[in-house]
Amino acid sequence: MAKLMEDEVFMAFTTYATIVILKMMLMAPMTAYHRITKGAFANEEDVTLKPAEERKKLLRTDPNVERVRRCHQNDLENVVPFVVVGLLYALTGPELSAALLHFRIFVGSRIFHTISYVGAFPQPCRGLSFMVGLLTTFSMAYRVLSTVLVL
Amino acid sequence: MAKLMEDEVFMAFTTYATIVILKMMLMAPMTAYHRITKGAFANEEDVTLKPAEERKKLLRTDPNVERVRRCHQNDLENVVPFVVVGLLYALTGPELSAALLHFRIFVGSRIFHTISYVGAFPQPCRGLSFMVGLLTTFSMAYRVLSTVLVL
Amino acid sequence: MAKLMEDEVFMAFTTYATIVILKMMLMAPMTAYHRITKGAFANEEDVTLKPAEERKKLLRTDPNVERVRRCHQNDLENVVPFVVVGLLYALTGPELSAALLHFRIFVGSRIFHTISYVGAFPQPCRGLSFMVGLLTTFSMAYRVLSTVLVL
Repeated sequence: MAKLMEDEVFMAFTTYATIVILKMMLMAPMTAYHRITKGAFANEEDVTLKPAEERKKLLRTDPNVERVRRCHQNDLENVVPFVVVGLLYALTGPELSAALLHFRIFVGSRIFHTISYVGAFPQPCRGLSFMVGLLTTFSMAYRVLSTVLVL
Repeated sequence: MAKLMEDEVFMAFTTYATIVILKMMLMAPMTAYHRITKGAFANEEDVTLKPAEERKKLLRTDPNVERVRRCHQNDLENVVPFVVVGLLYALTGPELSAALLHFRIFVGSRIFHTISYVGAFPQPCRGLSFMVGLLTTFSMAYRVLSTVLVL
Repeated sequence: MAKLMEDEVFMAFTTYATIVILKMMLMAPMTAYHRITKGAFANEEDVTLKPAEERKKLLRTDPNVERVRRCHQNDLENVVPFVVVGLLYALTGPELSAALLHFRIFVGSRIFHTISYVGAFPQPCRGLSFMVGLLTTFSMAYRVLSTVLVL
């Protein structure tokens, strides 16, 4: 195994990054589920098994599908920066306790964000969980740039 | 060169990750090609060279453009998780043969996915290739979490 | 700190990758700013504090919001490949001067791309800055595949 995987901070990063990426990947099956149960497809080849007169009606958007897709998009916009900044942050050699705090808060905030978004919880549930995730990533980026800066 | 690049599994990861990222990047020129040939633009500044009476008509969506864009989006949602999980997987020191199997199946499935999507192949071509890619990434994530778990 | 962070090329990559990821993350607050000032929201729970008769009108799209969102999407499609390919490129042990050239051109092109897009600059400002970024990433990918190729 690579030397990196003997470092506890890097192992913690590996664990939380994998968990939050898996969470993000689950949005795709969730979209598929809503597309099928609500009958709202995006491609003509997805509805060829249906009776010809129904096909056109099935090529539509559905509020539930769009909600899950917006949540997925928000994940892409936030989880990917976390993974990149988190990887570099783990390599700067922070304290294990500080690193765990960042990783746990981020992953927790994104899980709560998904629940708030998909469940349409009243604001500021979704807004706050989004902000917490953003600030956690900013905090790691600050540590990275204040430790390593070669311009 | 960094020590990592002397590890055969990491070199294989590097090769396949670069190939599949390049494939994903080619979706942008493909979108541009369809926007220009079909005359379907998203921004006013993209149509200023056209006669004034045509401009409004060119700010529209086109089914071919939207199809390529959906394919690009699906790449983002699947190729990025593969790259992240694949990197961590390569660092856990798997057998070269097992790693190559994962990388080849994933990259093959995504190339076939793009051809199926852009060519509007009948289902389940696109659905199956999507599922194969997803399961390959899940399989690598399973190996990562069962080798390295620091919560 | 990990050995990698003693390598000057890797430190330069870390710096520029973090900067361009931070730039990308700033698109989310910019979208929120336009949603609030223009009154154009995507979710019902975002408008519950408004008078009941106004709510429906606020669930709409706005050209400024959509412009920022397209810019954010273009960042995702280009910054993420840069980060992945740039990381692998940095590990192949290029000259520091060559690496800095690639990183600086890419980050500069993406900052100019954002300004061109959000400011609706006349073409080919946006098109050129997009192309420069794309070609920089291709150049790094070429170096990666010509140094490390395990198929």
